[in-house]
Amino acid sequence: MAKRLDGRLEDLGEFGLIARLTRGLPSRADVVLPAGDDTALLDLSGGKDVLLAATCDAQVEGRHFMRGAATPEEIGWKALAVNLSDIAAMGAEPLWALVSLLLPPGESVAVLDGVYAGLRTLAARYGVAIVGGNIAGTSGPLTIDITLLGRVMRARALTRAAGHPGDTLLVTGTLGAAAAGVLLAVGQPMDGAARAEIAPEMAARARAAMAAPVPRVAEGRALAASGVVTAMLDVSDGFAADLGHLCAASGVGALVEEAELPIAPAAAAVAPLYGRTPLDLALYGGEDYELLLSTRPDGARAAVETVRGAGGTARVVGRLTSDAGRIEMEAPGGERKRLDPRGWDHLRGADT
Amino acid sequence: MAKRLDGRLEDLGEFGLIARLTRGLPSRADVVLPAGDDTALLDLSGGKDVLLAATCDAQVEGRHFMRGAATPEEIGWKALAVNLSDIAAMGAEPLWALVSLLLPPGESVAVLDGVYAGLRTLAARYGVAIVGGNIAGTSGPLTIDITLLGRVMRARALTRAAGHPGDTLLVTGTLGAAAAGVLLAVGQPMDGAARAEIAPEMAARARAAMAAPVPRVAEGRALAASGVVTAMLDVSDGFAADLGHLCAASGVGALVEEAELPIAPAAAAVAPLYGRTPLDLALYGGEDYELLLSTRPDGARAAVETVRGAGGTARVVGRLTSDAGRIEMEAPGGERKRLDPRGWDHLRGADT
Repeated sequence: MAKRLDGRLEDLGEFGLIARLTRGLPSRADVVLPAGDDTALLDLSGGKDVLLAATCDAQVEGRHFMRGAATPEEIGWKALAVNLSDIAAMGAEPLWALVSLLLPPGESVAVLDGVYAGLRTLAARYGVAIVGGNIAGTSGPLTIDITLLGRVMRARALTRAAGHPGDTLLVTGTLGAAAAGVLLAVGQPMDGAARAEIAPEMAARARAAMAAPVPRVAEGRALAASGVVTAMLDVSDGFAADLGHLCAASGVGALVEEAELPIAPAAAAVAPLYGRTPLDLALYGGEDYELLLSTRPDGARAAVETVRGAGGTARVVGRLTSDAGRIEMEAPGGERKRLDPRGWDHLRGADT
Repeated sequence: MAKRLDGRLEDLGEFGLIARLTRGLPSRADVVLPAGDDTALLDLSGGKDVLLAATCDAQVEGRHFMRGAATPEEIGWKALAVNLSDIAAMGAEPLWALVSLLLPPGESVAVLDGVYAGLRTLAARYGVAIVGGNIAGTSGPLTIDITLLGRVMRARALTRAAGHPGDTLLVTGTLGAAAAGVLLAVGQPMDGAARAEIAPEMAARARAAMAAPVPRVAEGRALAASGVVTAMLDVSDGFAADLGHLCAASGVGALVEEAELPIAPAAAAVAPLYGRTPLDLALYGGEDYELLLSTRPDGARAAVETVRGAGGTARVVGRLTSDAGRIEMEAPGGERKRLDPRGWDHLRGADT
């Protein structure tokens, strides 16, 4: 995927760089699923039914959070939440976290107390123990890098690679609220638009979705236990981009019904003031931390019921097709267009 | 341990901050050994004999490495080596690594290729698979944060907490060479001293010890299997500081015989040019990544033979005493003095 043999990272992009660096790395027989899915799956004891799920994700000040736009508690919460979302996407049970802090000079203890309070709250909610960590100084920004470990039965683990043509496509919750929160925090309103036009409740929802997302842990475990799911991942890069990941890994295409996309009310309220459409935020905004999944054609109803039983919502938004790599969206009038599986690329730094 | 309720991190220090942040964190019944030792020990399957060992450590440009003083390959090597050393100190077998990269703007692909080449070389040597990771941009320095996972039999795992008065104290390899490498890289020679006075072989050894330490993985596993070791940890903060950790965790004191300390020839060659004593580097320099261990009084010979059988060296340097927290060193003439368990503190930024 590398376009040049040497050069700047910006030319490669995140996924190109990962492909380049991980090419030909030595593996082990006990690596059931290597890097590339939401988590790795590892066999600790040799042929046992219980697998270890392992993932890591970092939150960097100025990239993933801004102190002005999120409280220290929210920063800590989100640092764990994004990892919980990856564990949830495998249908795994989160167990243990290792927390690595990089601290700028003169960082205040009060900020770190707040970060840990947020971590602690979310860890307690999902029964996660913080079992290790590291603290190092840096001349750069505050960074919270978390490795989260979990457990999943071998027969239940869900990957992004096992979708089939004809499978039904579903997504949990709603899409676009976190992107609306980012617009409110750093966007430039259109000429003449005033933030006061947005209902306070919608602004609060957008802000919360951005700063303190709720990972779909219970939903993910219930879906894994349901037996009807064929492929699953979480929506972090954006619905279109993550659907692209699912299709690429599964070797399928997809047809999305535009009218069925669960656009968040906060996205609908905020987008127009910034010259965006709500659909744009829902498709490309990212950081929704919902679950995107495919089921056997006869399993969609069971999946919706399963998610409801776990306290969430899910809806059918389309289906997988045999046209590998072709991702289309059908408008209510029947017109189809290609969906560009773009999204936030952490290196290029270009969102939509 | 926190000296103030709020304030700057520099006032708390690394260990004070860790104590403050981790106080009262929720735990789980399957956490066999929580944060505080070289690695956490975790029971994935419930009561099984095989435990998961998990640790993480970050290497930050400008703090833990400098581009001018280490090649990209060495930077990658060391980032994994420091984690392998922690796994080794538990007597565990390293298995899987998750690699989190923080990349400054404009970072070159060639540097990252080199970092990964170093990682790959050391991973292959110890049979470690890189199973996951994360790449994020940062406005700060290049940082490589690795979580390493391993496996150890419950009955064999070695902690720093089980030393007893009367146990024999041993250390593997030699001490002070890495600190000599740091002096060569960033130290100011004494007036009139010339680096040319140092034999090239000694300068090369010091540099290699600093930039590409060799973790004692085989020695650690063999010692765990020997059955004679009571407590073990790796020498990262410095011999005196890490002996302090062992004594604090075990509730014992220690008496070190100065004449028996295995001072690295490179430390002896370099120290005088910088106005230091070789002993100073060996006691306080840190980053030796040797193993410091105690054995049953009758087990020292077996431990030395065990390490030799694994390809390394070890020697008796003292014994544990019942005088909790009192760490003394006896000079060849019989004079005793207190050893200050100081060392590199990553937040205070003060080495010796």
